[in-house]
Amino acid sequence: MASKAQLTISSRNYGAWALRGWLMAKLAGLEFHEHVVSPDDPAMKAEMLLLSSSMRVPALQHGKVHVWDTLAIGEYLNEIKPKAGLLPADQAARAHCRAICGEMHSGFSALRSSLPMNIKAHFPGFKIWSRAQADVDRILEIWTECLETYGGPYLFGDKPCIADAMYAPVVTRFLTYDVPLPPACVDYCKQMMALPALKEWIAEARKEPDEIDELDAEF
Amino acid sequence: MASKAQLTISSRNYGAWALRGWLMAKLAGLEFHEHVVSPDDPAMKAEMLLLSSSMRVPALQHGKVHVWDTLAIGEYLNEIKPKAGLLPADQAARAHCRAICGEMHSGFSALRSSLPMNIKAHFPGFKIWSRAQADVDRILEIWTECLETYGGPYLFGDKPCIADAMYAPVVTRFLTYDVPLPPACVDYCKQMMALPALKEWIAEARKEPDEIDELDAEF
Repeated sequence: MASKAQLTISSRNYGAWALRGWLMAKLAGLEFHEHVVSPDDPAMKAEMLLLSSSMRVPALQHGKVHVWDTLAIGEYLNEIKPKAGLLPADQAARAHCRAICGEMHSGFSALRSSLPMNIKAHFPGFKIWSRAQADVDRILEIWTECLETYGGPYLFGDKPCIADAMYAPVVTRFLTYDVPLPPACVDYCKQMMALPALKEWIAEARKEPDEIDELDAEF
Repeated sequence: MASKAQLTISSRNYGAWALRGWLMAKLAGLEFHEHVVSPDDPAMKAEMLLLSSSMRVPALQHGKVHVWDTLAIGEYLNEIKPKAGLLPADQAARAHCRAICGEMHSGFSALRSSLPMNIKAHFPGFKIWSRAQADVDRILEIWTECLETYGGPYLFGDKPCIADAMYAPVVTRFLTYDVPLPPACVDYCKQMMALPALKEWIAEARKEPDEIDELDAEF
């Protein structure tokens, strides 16, 4: 490739899809520039309001390849960095991995709207309404099954893969909103929070100014 | 594989995700049994009410592999039937294909809720509200770009791929709701409606009794 890759991201504090795509690129070992859209950019506002068509954030430009949508970015990264282990090597595990990534990609709308990612915040004793709780319960079921089946410490074994990236903003949400978790899932969250790439993202998120007050009013 | 594959689907008239997964399996040339969940099944009701976690419909059991979520099924089918052309051969086109599949998978919620798939129905002059119209406009932009870039008659050239399966329920919606389309998109819809597998699905949908009256009341 002639030029270095460029990944378009949005807020590190609020941008859950941006985090997923960025973490996949880091796990892949891709060298890339970051292009951060402004909080005033319509694409970022749309993402924050859950209206995003997913077309602009995250998006990856790599040579002649332009790819958007988080799962499509993950599949592309897996193709160009096959040794990074972004997808499990075993075919049945790989199908399982893509299935739970698909659930995160298309579902859990109650969780996403009522517990939006907000890394800097902490709400002890936060009350979760019933439909969001059903999403939490399903996610804990998914994690528990993966950790039992593949032995941890990550969802599909000893290396983080695209599924861990897809659920990373859920890990930060569970901490932000003080969600009670079973011990195996607490351990998984600790494992994820110790991941150098995620620590780097969170450190940058904490430096970010609070600039989207007008969006808070919409929730 | 020791046993024939089994694909779980729901209503042929209303089940847009079921249609996508089924069409992918047909395009792949997979031999499979169909397991049709009853209209009274909670999984089907959830799918109809757009609450589905996508876990049960569609779902594919193939030997020891159990895979759910439509995109994950598509990727699995592409792995086991690499010659079927479910994904474009060119890497940049393949990334583009996955990106627009991802948009359909995670987005267009206004279109999906206000113009639900209903193959048997026809509503001439149906009024589309503005957010659904924005979804329609983006879909027409996606289709037009693909048809121009890859030359048609399908989205990525001369063979139908997973993107055509993902957008197949949009084709039937545009006919059901009498959506005005530019000529290139009319031609694309005609091409899709002439696809033997889609004709087979539609013929079966037309035979289906109207059994989900209680769901209509929820919209």
